[in-house]
Amino acid sequence: MAKSRSIRNKVSKKDYEVRVPELREQLIHLQVQLKNAPFPVLLVVAGVESTGKGDAINTINGWLDPRGVEVFAFHPPTDEESARPYMWRYWRCLPPRGRLGIYTGSWYTEALREASAKNADPAKFKHALQRIEHFESLLVADGALIVKCWLHLSQEAQHKKLTKLESNSRTAWRVTAQDWEAHQNYDQHETLGKTLRKATNRTGASWTLIDSENERGRNVAITETLLEAFAHHHKQHRAPPPAGRPTEITPLRPEGITKLEALPLDKNISASEYVKKRDRWLGELNQLVRQAAKKERSIVFVFEGWDAAGKGGAIRRLTNAIEARNCRVIPVAKPTDEEKAHHYLWRFWRHLPQAGRVTIYDRSWYGRVLVERIEGFAREEEWRRAYEELNDFEHQLSENGVIVLKFWLHISKEEQLRRFQHRMETEYKRHKINDEDWRNREQWSEYETSVGDMLILTNKSYAPWYLVPAEDKRYARLQVLKLACRRIAAALQKG
Amino acid sequence: MAKSRSIRNKVSKKDYEVRVPELREQLIHLQVQLKNAPFPVLLVVAGVESTGKGDAINTINGWLDPRGVEVFAFHPPTDEESARPYMWRYWRCLPPRGRLGIYTGSWYTEALREASAKNADPAKFKHALQRIEHFESLLVADGALIVKCWLHLSQEAQHKKLTKLESNSRTAWRVTAQDWEAHQNYDQHETLGKTLRKATNRTGASWTLIDSENERGRNVAITETLLEAFAHHHKQHRAPPPAGRPTEITPLRPEGITKLEALPLDKNISASEYVKKRDRWLGELNQLVRQAAKKERSIVFVFEGWDAAGKGGAIRRLTNAIEARNCRVIPVAKPTDEEKAHHYLWRFWRHLPQAGRVTIYDRSWYGRVLVERIEGFAREEEWRRAYEELNDFEHQLSENGVIVLKFWLHISKEEQLRRFQHRMETEYKRHKINDEDWRNREQWSEYETSVGDMLILTNKSYAPWYLVPAEDKRYARLQVLKLACRRIAAALQKG
Repeated sequence: MAKSRSIRNKVSKKDYEVRVPELREQLIHLQVQLKNAPFPVLLVVAGVESTGKGDAINTINGWLDPRGVEVFAFHPPTDEESARPYMWRYWRCLPPRGRLGIYTGSWYTEALREASAKNADPAKFKHALQRIEHFESLLVADGALIVKCWLHLSQEAQHKKLTKLESNSRTAWRVTAQDWEAHQNYDQHETLGKTLRKATNRTGASWTLIDSENERGRNVAITETLLEAFAHHHKQHRAPPPAGRPTEITPLRPEGITKLEALPLDKNISASEYVKKRDRWLGELNQLVRQAAKKERSIVFVFEGWDAAGKGGAIRRLTNAIEARNCRVIPVAKPTDEEKAHHYLWRFWRHLPQAGRVTIYDRSWYGRVLVERIEGFAREEEWRRAYEELNDFEHQLSENGVIVLKFWLHISKEEQLRRFQHRMETEYKRHKINDEDWRNREQWSEYETSVGDMLILTNKSYAPWYLVPAEDKRYARLQVLKLACRRIAAALQKG
Repeated sequence: MAKSRSIRNKVSKKDYEVRVPELREQLIHLQVQLKNAPFPVLLVVAGVESTGKGDAINTINGWLDPRGVEVFAFHPPTDEESARPYMWRYWRCLPPRGRLGIYTGSWYTEALREASAKNADPAKFKHALQRIEHFESLLVADGALIVKCWLHLSQEAQHKKLTKLESNSRTAWRVTAQDWEAHQNYDQHETLGKTLRKATNRTGASWTLIDSENERGRNVAITETLLEAFAHHHKQHRAPPPAGRPTEITPLRPEGITKLEALPLDKNISASEYVKKRDRWLGELNQLVRQAAKKERSIVFVFEGWDAAGKGGAIRRLTNAIEARNCRVIPVAKPTDEEKAHHYLWRFWRHLPQAGRVTIYDRSWYGRVLVERIEGFAREEEWRRAYEELNDFEHQLSENGVIVLKFWLHISKEEQLRRFQHRMETEYKRHKINDEDWRNREQWSEYETSVGDMLILTNKSYAPWYLVPAEDKRYARLQVLKLACRRIAAALQKG
């Protein structure tokens, strides 16, 4: 746990005139260094009302080269934002590595606004802070630097400031009824601020308390805090060397492989029975998806499985039951360069469905603990902490009413070979197989271990894994339909 | 002008069972070929109400490999969409090259809905169709294939269909009051459809009229139309060879260079006078921007100019006058790989500001007719047609109430050399200069010609170019502030 600092300094006009050109030069230097740094910087300026957050940001923004900065403000959520999990709007506004984002009205503003409302529920505030803490810790673990300044003003100074603004006809518009109300409830806001800072103070994202009475002193203090934190962070966070492929994949949870191996692969179903049952389940699924949409519940399907296990076929059967206009299939391949410049979860956040829609992921965020672990694209500490991160991601979806279903389609190594060969021999299926598939096949046991760990470590009641024996394609497709119907029906009954 | 085709075919159940597997195989083959094709495919299924657009798309979508397709539907505009130019929501939903987008409820739905309302203005419909025609022709010129099917149903068949749907308790919900209303006004809808098809029929985006009474026939006809159009297009649209740098840049409009050369570069202003005037204009600009925001008018600033002409400095002075939270500076550098996979204007559409915000582009879409023309990144027919495309883009902004200001900052070749040398000598400015700047400098006269053409061909009343002598930085910054104030004030007075 980091210690939060407190700065109270008065800067004279004369000193300011000397200091500002120095600070500007240092800021430009920061931006030049940041350009090639392997992390983004977030500068959060928070504090209760009327502490001059906007003025401070305008000033400091003016000192920076505008080409490497973006200032984010949050207005009331748009309807596109309201239709998605709480943190979506903040994920939308994250700077990529090498850039600086300045936040006036960050995730803290909304939390504070809610908490200071009449009859606010303290448990809700606590929950909001936990969510923020998690969000920031995720970014910090990924290397981000979050510099957080809390602007403070004594009640007396606040009164002076509001009165002064009101007395000038050119600034009077800036004082709102809300400001005076916040002033009346000064103590309550102070307490909320303290609670908030205590709950969200951590190394890499620690709070600096800055007295805002002297505006020059405030501007200097924020800038110095940013410069200092950056210098420290920049020294410590060089781009780590690529991990390289690990020599061995050892199971974290050996019971995972056991579970996989226990799957009965001899299940099958006749063609005629398949058609009969399929149509029944398709009809049912169609109804359920429609009901879910009516209740504004989204559905997220995740498909993972061995190459050639039949993910595509199963997905196609699913989409047959769903109105095309409400359904989106997202094949997850290599990230684009924009995606690579962000946290690995960013690419999944950006495509989250609006409430009431269905999204089907053909491969997913689980690549982090499968291919990235095995090929060494993620370092050990990265994929190790990913289980928790993925759980939390799905938990946030589920909190927002999203029904999450995850399928692992399982086949034997022999069946895979048969299917690969069949694909090679069939003209219009040949495009479905490439060298990478053969390479992956050579690492069957490494995948087995990683899949086993994944199935145990990310199997949650809010986002369970369904293991589907897929040696018989018809059986697998039917299972997917049936399990989907059951889970959606249960979720709709509960919620 | 392409001829629209008309298909009316009845397919028996037995024939259908034979035909569908064939079509599916051909569709998969199409998708495999498309994957590496240098163009996107858009399948638009339109038609009046109750012709089974949704059913047809669901069926055909089910025949495709869901991994390479996306189905787009348009619900009533979200508030993020309403706050931007009309076509923004469609630009958001364009498939990249190598992918297929299927549109149920496309840009045609909204145009038809508006036109069939009571007291609809025929001029507005005409305008909407022109806008659509322009949008499609832009994509087609860029190589896109747009396959458009208009589903037709006789009034009698429509009646039969609605009655049948209503009589079944499982499908009755699909018939709305709107459907019956459309049925009552069958003739009006027919006429609108005819007008629409006539106005938007072109090679690469032609209409096929398909009778929808026999559903099997309809599904087959749409698929065959798509397959046929694709086969034809695929043969003709191989990736063109890169253009290569042109041997010579000849002016299209020689008066452009004359205009540039006529700029008086000896203008300057003393430091003390500068400060006085600057503060006056900054104050005025601040007020004007605030007024614009109140009226939900966005402002778009475009900065172009020689390397080292002082774009960054001028932008920074501007941002000093604007609330950081309402202002965004977008430096335009190389496109990302996602951007490269789309039409060159896509990257600018995607970042368009919401109503009431200020966006400052540091370099812009004019790269198409400057660097891309000179370096041969765009082929001659591409940069030649770009002038019109850019004019139309800005016209759409202006139609939406956006105030567009474009600045060309002009310096002499000698002054540029002085500034380059100064940058090399100054520690914290060295990052601002690189080999590319020196290379660009060698092509001074090629740029001069291209800039001249741009200034003449894209100087419109709704988006005028301001030529700013920038040999003296203070003079240039002041000019920018002054011109910005005048234009914004004038625009607010008019609108």
